[in-house]
Amino acid sequence: MTNGQYQSVIEALHECMAACNQCYDACLKEKDVHMMAECIRLDRECADICAYFEQAISRGTPFISELAKVCSIICEACGNECKKHDHEHCQKCADACLKCAEACKSLVA
Amino acid sequence: MTNGQYQSVIEALHECMAACNQCYDACLKEKDVHMMAECIRLDRECADICAYFEQAISRGTPFISELAKVCSIICEACGNECKKHDHEHCQKCADACLKCAEACKSLVA
Amino acid sequence: MTNGQYQSVIEALHECMAACNQCYDACLKEKDVHMMAECIRLDRECADICAYFEQAISRGTPFISELAKVCSIICEACGNECKKHDHEHCQKCADACLKCAEACKSLVA
Amino acid sequence: MTNGQYQSVIEALHECMAACNQCYDACLKEKDVHMMAECIRLDRECADICAYFEQAISRGTPFISELAKVCSIICEACGNECKKHDHEHCQKCADACLKCAEACKSLVA
Repeated sequence: MTNGQYQSVIEALHECMAACNQCYDACLKEKDVHMMAECIRLDRECADICAYFEQAISRGTPFISELAKVCSIICEACGNECKKHDHEHCQKCADACLKCAEACKSLVA
Repeated sequence: MTNGQYQSVIEALHECMAACNQCYDACLKEKDVHMMAECIRLDRECADICAYFEQAISRGTPFISELAKVCSIICEACGNECKKHDHEHCQKCADACLKCAEACKSLVA
Repeated sequence: MTNGQYQSVIEALHECMAACNQCYDACLKEKDVHMMAECIRLDRECADICAYFEQAISRGTPFISELAKVCSIICEACGNECKKHDHEHCQKCADACLKCAEACKSLVA
Repeated sequence: MTNGQYQSVIEALHECMAACNQCYDACLKEKDVHMMAECIRLDRECADICAYFEQAISRGTPFISELAKVCSIICEACGNECKKHDHEHCQKCADACLKCAEACKSLVA
């Protein structure tokens, strides 16, 4: 297998990581930070696992399926939380997370 | 739940991360690096997931069980590879990995 | 050089990472999250660089001095922010950060 | 400042991370692994710091200049090591590293 075969997942992971970190950064600047606490928390969890998994794919990890599974679960949880909030950064993040969750699921054996 | 409840797992993860990285470093200095290639690869996979999971526990991640599962799988694979090699760093690493795999399994829901 | 020579720094990094993540987790649960936004942000920055540097030391990185320098700067910034807040987790985190900053400075060439 | 302002650096970091991990993976499969030991080691250092810095930029880290400096040093060291080897993956990696080193230098205050 080559990195090329994973290109669409790598892109989804990368967009999700960036969207989660931008949402995290923006949430910390919102006036209603208290309402955004769970969003901030899940944004970090999701950004970190997406960054992790993307690196792991790029170095030819033998654990694609196992990492894809946990990543899909975390992306889905973050996407569902972000969906609840009307901020544009949250909605954009929800889209990236749920798209990434689907991409990851396609790699689960 | 508190960090205290996870203390023994945190210690196992930390020892495993350190042992894997020391084994990785030592393998790269061995004369028979070619024979150690799979060990080097798995040492990195295992050190990275243990470091990741330890941080995740310490920040109160909601994904303990999911991360514990993938971590136990990677620790077991690394431990089994290390066991094959007579170098002291490999044997020491195998012990740390297999002990950590068990600790992680105890957290899988 | 051996890992043993870095033992006290490794311990300081590890305690700092844990304290920052516990402070981050606790800040997200505070009623005055808005006041804690900068603390949350710096806790993550500091936990991440400490975890990173600890792993790098354990794998024999050739970049000890360079990483120690950036780590000391981030620890100091996080410690100074935490010091401003009366919460016990912030005060505990400030201590761990400032101790770690000193430990890192001792490694800067 | 916005993520947009950092777009070219983010792309350079991302390409460098991917190239380093692909080089690392390929080096571990080479017959002359022993000759590649330093390349394997630096590929990991460089991939890890690039992935780290990219994430840090995307979450609005206040430590752009400090992280850019250490990243440029590690990228340059990895690029110079890779340049010594004729393997296509090493030459490709050298290019990505040296390009990324320049991009990082542009962010050093």
